[in-house]
Amino acid sequence: MQFDHAGIATDDADALADLYADLFDAPVAHEEHLDDLRVVFLDLGDGYFELLEPTDEGTVARYLDRNGPGIHHLALATDDVAAALDAARDHGVELIDEEPRPGAWGHDVAFLHPKSTGGVLVEYVEH
Amino acid sequence: MQFDHAGIATDDADALADLYADLFDAPVAHEEHLDDLRVVFLDLGDGYFELLEPTDEGTVARYLDRNGPGIHHLALATDDVAAALDAARDHGVELIDEEPRPGAWGHDVAFLHPKSTGGVLVEYVEH
Repeated sequence: MQFDHAGIATDDADALADLYADLFDAPVAHEEHLDDLRVVFLDLGDGYFELLEPTDEGTVARYLDRNGPGIHHLALATDDVAAALDAARDHGVELIDEEPRPGAWGHDVAFLHPKSTGGVLVEYVEH
Repeated sequence: MQFDHAGIATDDADALADLYADLFDAPVAHEEHLDDLRVVFLDLGDGYFELLEPTDEGTVARYLDRNGPGIHHLALATDDVAAALDAARDHGVELIDEEPRPGAWGHDVAFLHPKSTGGVLVEYVEH
């Protein structure tokens, strides 16, 4: 698998996008509204930052309330999310998503529970 | 800049390396002892996981005590850490390292303070 993106929880995606464009030369590549979030992707060479700004109650809003802004998850690209989930399940990993579901950019995605992966919320992404 | 690695704080780098090899097809690429840490790099296509296991008191040991295991920092590759630090300083960003210093793999590195970067501990790495 390959690094795809780092998801960053924020209260202000526009301000953070401006800052990261200046500091990291990471311009906006894509943005959309997805469920309870506004998501803004910043181009980072072979991967992306995904800025996650809540527009409603949900897991990222709760994350921000508990932890403040910061790194929310890491996403890895795979050419078969369903197969990767099966392998993780066979390995005894707790899954947040039992099946692939539509994520940002229309990609199939699925999350693994951080308690099974060393405290890291991992997302599989299929392009 | 480009994604270089995600630093993961852990109490057991070997166990996590075994798990990530299985789940993410991310084999060990490099390991070394650096200051108060054992660091293990796992190959992730165009970047790495850097597993950080404390061998002594220090910032990662304190991080683990406070937060438990999980994502500790994100590292971005630049061809000039000193210039990137100057630009960040000019931007009003609080720096943890005022000058580049030797990091893992002998690379020059420097960290930005997360309070200036949306809660994300960012490391610049010069290969």
